[in-house]
Amino acid sequence: MEITTLDALKTFRLESVINQDAITRTITLLGTFPSTSSERREQGIVRIEQRPLRFDDEDDAGMEIFERIRKAETVLANDIYFTLEAWLSDSDSNSAANLMISVICPATDVHIRKYTAQPLRLLTESPSTYTSITLPYILSVPPSRTQWITALLSPPPPPSSPHTTSPTAASHPPEELLISKPEYVVLPDMKWDTHNADELYLLCIARDGGRLRTLRDLKYKDVKWLEEMRAEVGRVVKGRWGLGRGEVRMYVHYQPSYYHFHVHIVNANHASGHMGMRVGQAHLLEDVIELLKLDAHLPPTSDPIMHRLSFTFGLGREHGLFDALVGVQEGEGGSTQMPGCNE
Amino acid sequence: MEITTLDALKTFRLESVINQDAITRTITLLGTFPSTSSERREQGIVRIEQRPLRFDDEDDAGMEIFERIRKAETVLANDIYFTLEAWLSDSDSNSAANLMISVICPATDVHIRKYTAQPLRLLTESPSTYTSITLPYILSVPPSRTQWITALLSPPPPPSSPHTTSPTAASHPPEELLISKPEYVVLPDMKWDTHNADELYLLCIARDGGRLRTLRDLKYKDVKWLEEMRAEVGRVVKGRWGLGRGEVRMYVHYQPSYYHFHVHIVNANHASGHMGMRVGQAHLLEDVIELLKLDAHLPPTSDPIMHRLSFTFGLGREHGLFDALVGVQEGEGGSTQMPGCNE
Repeated sequence: MEITTLDALKTFRLESVINQDAITRTITLLGTFPSTSSERREQGIVRIEQRPLRFDDEDDAGMEIFERIRKAETVLANDIYFTLEAWLSDSDSNSAANLMISVICPATDVHIRKYTAQPLRLLTESPSTYTSITLPYILSVPPSRTQWITALLSPPPPPSSPHTTSPTAASHPPEELLISKPEYVVLPDMKWDTHNADELYLLCIARDGGRLRTLRDLKYKDVKWLEEMRAEVGRVVKGRWGLGRGEVRMYVHYQPSYYHFHVHIVNANHASGHMGMRVGQAHLLEDVIELLKLDAHLPPTSDPIMHRLSFTFGLGREHGLFDALVGVQEGEGGSTQMPGCNE
Repeated sequence: MEITTLDALKTFRLESVINQDAITRTITLLGTFPSTSSERREQGIVRIEQRPLRFDDEDDAGMEIFERIRKAETVLANDIYFTLEAWLSDSDSNSAANLMISVICPATDVHIRKYTAQPLRLLTESPSTYTSITLPYILSVPPSRTQWITALLSPPPPPSSPHTTSPTAASHPPEELLISKPEYVVLPDMKWDTHNADELYLLCIARDGGRLRTLRDLKYKDVKWLEEMRAEVGRVVKGRWGLGRGEVRMYVHYQPSYYHFHVHIVNANHASGHMGMRVGQAHLLEDVIELLKLDAHLPPTSDPIMHRLSFTFGLGREHGLFDALVGVQEGEGGSTQMPGCNE
């Protein structure tokens, strides 16, 4: 049958939804259409893709949309932050809102910088630029940036004095810790509701953040706790959310957004964290452990493996390391030399 | 000013579009709102997010949408493949279509398998499971799967006999090659239109696909051509599309979709290839080169580095390696032992 009209489309009889992807905004349906040559209906696949709103023309991009909105409802109004749901046409007004509109007013320069698109550039940090540029930068970051981690890792108050606990003292009250060991804690990421296992998102935070700032600080001796952590997380994730081995993905960012070593733990099929999973930003924990194990086979006089390698990552123009690392890359000219441990 | 109504929203005066993301379907606008306390207008940020169509209820997911469609137009009708654009409401019918609908009818089992969601599982391939499971699997893949590469790499016919060239002989006619060297060729990926530099997508294919099937086959001696290729691609990409150093991202898949070594080369800011860039599937070329360079520092009696490491990757249930690798993982029990090169 030729499916070229709306009427033809409407002869579809649904059997099952075989795919649904929130990222690409598609749904794929399996069902049947009437056959032109026989009595029996024929199997058909229908894939429906929601098209992005058109914002082609910078001049009236946003304005044109406001003109098309028929209805808006406040979801949140908190200080300078406002959220509204909006419907693009009357005929849709009984269904879910088409748009979610967030407003910040008045907006500061910090807000503007945060929300402005930052083109990435891939930059390479050799062991020597790590020492001369990145490490001093890390040491210059004010400790207040990781204050929330310090609060989290401090021992909970003794149970006999509940009134000394301020409910707002830490972003994560201690009872949310899923695992607490001498070397690390594991807790739900703030972005996750802790219920929907499809979107499972946990964070493992090393206790010794003074020593372990990034993966550059990992050594062979850390393999032990990393492997134990992986097994512990496996047990908790199986027990509480029913996810088996191979159903979680663990990775480390380099550069990370804060310099206190931590591991992201997400459902292996979780799509929404996809930008943070890109090569050039993320390193699979398994791969990191494999590298650390190589240390045992390198000449004993060598630097630890994580001090021998160059790392390449995407950085936005607003990142504190951007200018310095671009300077090194531009200055160094053509391709790197072989053989190299970049020393 | 409180921005809690449609009327308040419409007082926005646009200054610029500061972000636009086709993946998350958002646009972020910078502009001003009138101030309640002064004559001067205040800066405001408005972020508009298109919400996914709701497909919550499996029973009528697709059907409900068909009921809401007001208009549909054929874009393509080719054999069993049909594409339509569709509009969800009359009031939108002057603007771009809301939906793109693709239909395959009659659909075979191969179509259904291809379009059905495949949950991934992260599996680890040690050097010994590579030898006992993956390599035999690779060797069993019929050569016809990479016939298109063989056609591509064969020397072009002598210019004196143009009539011997069949226009359908190769998916990529030889004139599309951007770079052709004894070790490799570089050409545009079929998914790319070759014009829009924002979506640049090239493929580097090794000539010696018999030796180089995957990254497992790379050795220290391959660093030379990989680094030269990186530099050559840099020159071509700069000259033809104006992209500078650090503006392309190169990566290798493991497991790849076909077993003839190739490198993906994309605009570093390219988002649409994001799922193929996930850790656990992709390895940054820079990281691969760093690993290969370590070979020079390992004891000379050692296996090459790519034969010493375990690799962990996500595989769908329909992948030919899935059952065998799950079997190994389930059989092996708890965590791996230290210290390990997994030999």
